[in-house]
Amino acid sequence: MLIAFGETKVLCTATVEERIPPFLKDTGKGWVTAEYGMLPRSSHDRISRDSVKKGRAMEISRLIGRSLRAVVDLAALGERQIMIDCDVIQADGGTRTASISGAYVALHDALTHLTKLGKVPNIPLIGQCAAISVGVIHGAPMLDLCYTEDSTADVDMNLVMRDDGTYIEIQGSAEGASFSRKTMDDLLAMGEKGIRELFALQRSALGLT
Amino acid sequence: MLIAFGETKVLCTATVEERIPPFLKDTGKGWVTAEYGMLPRSSHDRISRDSVKKGRAMEISRLIGRSLRAVVDLAALGERQIMIDCDVIQADGGTRTASISGAYVALHDALTHLTKLGKVPNIPLIGQCAAISVGVIHGAPMLDLCYTEDSTADVDMNLVMRDDGTYIEIQGSAEGASFSRKTMDDLLAMGEKGIRELFALQRSALGLT
Amino acid sequence: MLIAFGETKVLCTATVEERIPPFLKDTGKGWVTAEYGMLPRSSHDRISRDSVKKGRAMEISRLIGRSLRAVVDLAALGERQIMIDCDVIQADGGTRTASISGAYVALHDALTHLTKLGKVPNIPLIGQCAAISVGVIHGAPMLDLCYTEDSTADVDMNLVMRDDGTYIEIQGSAEGASFSRKTMDDLLAMGEKGIRELFALQRSALGLT
Amino acid sequence: MLIAFGETKVLCTATVEERIPPFLKDTGKGWVTAEYGMLPRSSHDRISRDSVKKGRAMEISRLIGRSLRAVVDLAALGERQIMIDCDVIQADGGTRTASISGAYVALHDALTHLTKLGKVPNIPLIGQCAAISVGVIHGAPMLDLCYTEDSTADVDMNLVMRDDGTYIEIQGSAEGASFSRKTMDDLLAMGEKGIRELFALQRSALGLT
Amino acid sequence: MLIAFGETKVLCTATVEERIPPFLKDTGKGWVTAEYGMLPRSSHDRISRDSVKKGRAMEISRLIGRSLRAVVDLAALGERQIMIDCDVIQADGGTRTASISGAYVALHDALTHLTKLGKVPNIPLIGQCAAISVGVIHGAPMLDLCYTEDSTADVDMNLVMRDDGTYIEIQGSAEGASFSRKTMDDLLAMGEKGIRELFALQRSALGLT
Amino acid sequence: MLIAFGETKVLCTATVEERIPPFLKDTGKGWVTAEYGMLPRSSHDRISRDSVKKGRAMEISRLIGRSLRAVVDLAALGERQIMIDCDVIQADGGTRTASISGAYVALHDALTHLTKLGKVPNIPLIGQCAAISVGVIHGAPMLDLCYTEDSTADVDMNLVMRDDGTYIEIQGSAEGASFSRKTMDDLLAMGEKGIRELFALQRSALGLT
Repeated sequence: MLIAFGETKVLCTATVEERIPPFLKDTGKGWVTAEYGMLPRSSHDRISRDSVKKGRAMEISRLIGRSLRAVVDLAALGERQIMIDCDVIQADGGTRTASISGAYVALHDALTHLTKLGKVPNIPLIGQCAAISVGVIHGAPMLDLCYTEDSTADVDMNLVMRDDGTYIEIQGSAEGASFSRKTMDDLLAMGEKGIRELFALQRSALGLT
Repeated sequence: MLIAFGETKVLCTATVEERIPPFLKDTGKGWVTAEYGMLPRSSHDRISRDSVKKGRAMEISRLIGRSLRAVVDLAALGERQIMIDCDVIQADGGTRTASISGAYVALHDALTHLTKLGKVPNIPLIGQCAAISVGVIHGAPMLDLCYTEDSTADVDMNLVMRDDGTYIEIQGSAEGASFSRKTMDDLLAMGEKGIRELFALQRSALGLT
Repeated sequence: MLIAFGETKVLCTATVEERIPPFLKDTGKGWVTAEYGMLPRSSHDRISRDSVKKGRAMEISRLIGRSLRAVVDLAALGERQIMIDCDVIQADGGTRTASISGAYVALHDALTHLTKLGKVPNIPLIGQCAAISVGVIHGAPMLDLCYTEDSTADVDMNLVMRDDGTYIEIQGSAEGASFSRKTMDDLLAMGEKGIRELFALQRSALGLT
Repeated sequence: MLIAFGETKVLCTATVEERIPPFLKDTGKGWVTAEYGMLPRSSHDRISRDSVKKGRAMEISRLIGRSLRAVVDLAALGERQIMIDCDVIQADGGTRTASISGAYVALHDALTHLTKLGKVPNIPLIGQCAAISVGVIHGAPMLDLCYTEDSTADVDMNLVMRDDGTYIEIQGSAEGASFSRKTMDDLLAMGEKGIRELFALQRSALGLT
Repeated sequence: MLIAFGETKVLCTATVEERIPPFLKDTGKGWVTAEYGMLPRSSHDRISRDSVKKGRAMEISRLIGRSLRAVVDLAALGERQIMIDCDVIQADGGTRTASISGAYVALHDALTHLTKLGKVPNIPLIGQCAAISVGVIHGAPMLDLCYTEDSTADVDMNLVMRDDGTYIEIQGSAEGASFSRKTMDDLLAMGEKGIRELFALQRSALGLT
Repeated sequence: MLIAFGETKVLCTATVEERIPPFLKDTGKGWVTAEYGMLPRSSHDRISRDSVKKGRAMEISRLIGRSLRAVVDLAALGERQIMIDCDVIQADGGTRTASISGAYVALHDALTHLTKLGKVPNIPLIGQCAAISVGVIHGAPMLDLCYTEDSTADVDMNLVMRDDGTYIEIQGSAEGASFSRKTMDDLLAMGEKGIRELFALQRSALGLT
């Protein structure tokens, strides 16, 4: 599926693999992992295929995997792995949060298919997850930053939440600055509101409402 | 300098380089960057030199650089770069936060030296920074997790703060779970208390008290 | 632009770069080069990002570049380079020929834009090019093979032609077999007919008819 | 064996390996594969070992393997693999076609040896193959281009044929130009004549005439 | 353990692994291997992590392994491997010889531990080994060169010896020069005297005297 | 030129490059460097191109360069570099010493050519160098070991000498053993005798006698 957040477009797919990482052998549990990539022409300036920022891509890949595992019942999934691919077709800020929100939909599709095949009795999901980026621009809190906003943000926060209102991941970061507790509280409130809207959009995309 | 947090030991050094990254050319500003590595025998099980987790190391390297830049006056530093090396000699949890806290001391030393050489009029620092890891173990908030605790933690949070009480970075993460707002508030309070103690230790190591 | 040939979908983009390869320095001539890639999930079976067939990708990249250079007036282009990116979103046979046919449209767009900016007086094109794959399946010549057909083909031929009826590239290949002159003549005739249809489609996509 | 075409010298060897690629497991069939390399000093200008054109080498390796497989009875070969190494000692154009023609002789030797060892009842060959390069230089068709001719050729064609007059591979390519059907027919006729002479030379090298 | 030779400091550790290299499978014999590395800040000028001299590190790694294997009873060790890690924390000449002398102590410790665990009946050592570097500086033989001396040495010799007075390795090398038999004899005599002192220091570090 | 020592065959070439390594910039001095490689089929068992022992190749490359620099007047050579390529076509022990002895001849040829071109007034050589391997097989000293002997040798010694009887390099090494001073003296005497014969062969190959 293709998820679009403003000008940011990410292709998210899920592949079921009948194998698991070695450390899960004979535990009866499954795994969810992810790989994140950007097409060379996705960015404002063309990114060279060779000089792609591997470290950043791996960091985001691990974040996507961790976020999804928080809502999957790995024991109910059984000894198989869901491989999520998130490939950014067009980037305008917030690619990691768009990837998580889109990956959830792809994951839901794949797990539903697995259920229909009779491989698992019920969809092995224990919650819904979505992510959003919030930040402070020229002193004002803003939702879902686009690239121009993102690169001039004083504070940048990525928030991954479950539909029960708990947090899966909070990454708040200031470049060349720092932020107060008050600012953080404001960003968390604004982010939660945005994520609630995403939950509704995900359910709609999945035909669940 | 060698920083030790319980059984975790990190060698932190700072090198002054009279060159800057291309994007700072002719801006009059300097830069602080970092590289993080682990010796093969630093971990409980020996890490193969080949299979070192490159992505994780780059993620931590970038976190260290970002944290330090938040307390450096880059314009006052001038067109030069401080390269921080953090090499983990022995690992028992919290290596990234130990690296940041130790790197600050190495950075302070290097900038003091630069000042003594007359290359900058005053130490170009606008604050002090330190980092700590906190987490929830079997439901109870804990400070400065060792490896056994870290790997069984429900929630793991890394906190980087300035001495004026503001945040530079918050990374809260749940593996296979999620956490409530109440838990987060408790962790932030506990973390801040621990960081205040680190500030005192840093000042003492620098002979400033 | 996204080109679709049956189930094969390729994203083709062109980027103008104000630099040229070293061997063209001070010749007044420009260059056209290409990079071809496949998304992991584009294929019937997921392709691992690591084990991507680098040799094959580079071979196709060079074919795309060579094909386009045959219709560009490099002297009129001036000392700049057009970088073509072809990324396969979905693959069902014929990805290299679809890439060439789509890349021509992206190239035309980029050169038109350059002309509008006044950087070149006229669109520096000396012809139109398109490509098609033909083959022999169970003894019968077939146009534009899909993946199932491709992998069982006795003979596989890729044809790149100009609109004046001349050939830019002919690659005829038999896997575990060989083919007669008669077969080759039949394939060339069929291929030319198909390419003529592509020329019309390209002109229509460019709004030239 | 060392094959020399004018100033081009290629060392061709064949190694029998009692293992096959995974996709042939339990099919009873064997495989022929090839690796092509150039010594740094083989070329007019020394090639750096690091910057060797990997993509080109892999493209040629695959062409050599494909060409030889067209004349081998893979079922009669049984579950073993022939690995062909073609290393260019001195290059003066036509290294890929010289490699194929030489590799056939090395392959024939290896298969004869296998037959003498009693591992296969008869030499598992169903034909003879050789390759030649032809091209158009300043408007005139030419056989077996040397390097100076090759780099100034308007059209460059590599032809791989069987001794029954059928084609295994045709690669016709124009750099910055295109060619007519008439030119192609002339090149095919000239190439076939040259390949017939190579067949005689191969048989003589193998002591078969 | 940390070994210090003047300003040179090397961290030497030994890890027992219950696996052996493939070529020793079912021979009943064990193996000793080593890996040598330098921290970026160990040298007078910071070494970039990327441009680390891999070839030199592998050459030294193999020398360390070879030296230690000469004093180990591999049959008595049984089918297990001792992996030695030598990481240079601070370098001031003679890092390879310091590594060997220190590695012997780490090896002795690991083998003693293995004996205490009852995995081998006796410490499987058949001798003691140590290494030293000697050289000619401005015409005069010198022991244990520091970096400034090393880089200006006319002749540089590394000597690895056993406690029975036999040689395990002699590497004598002249940069841009050559040396006479007389010089070599002088260097060997001086080196042996220095190594005898190292044997005493090793025994003392191991609490054996 | 192709040098053959028994069954060992090495292709040695020298390339003059009008550039020097950065550390020699503006010193007026030149440099000699070398690269050593093995063809996959040179060894008794085919060596995979991927798993080539890079560390060993780099170690030998550096030995060849160092050996030749000891007989070149780098100041008289001027600011240019001689790049030596040694590629083993067939290996049967002693490839590194054969490479050095052959490389000297290639070097002499290149420097003679440079002199004829008038770029240097005289051949910038201050001596002749050659290398040999000697060893102890079943207790008996032997000259110029072939592969079978080499792999069962108790002691293996590589000797590089100048024609004035001085040593450029001595590498004596015992695998799983050690050797006495008496053995070393015997090996040095035997090696020197062999090298004197090589000096005569080199002069003859260069047409100097």
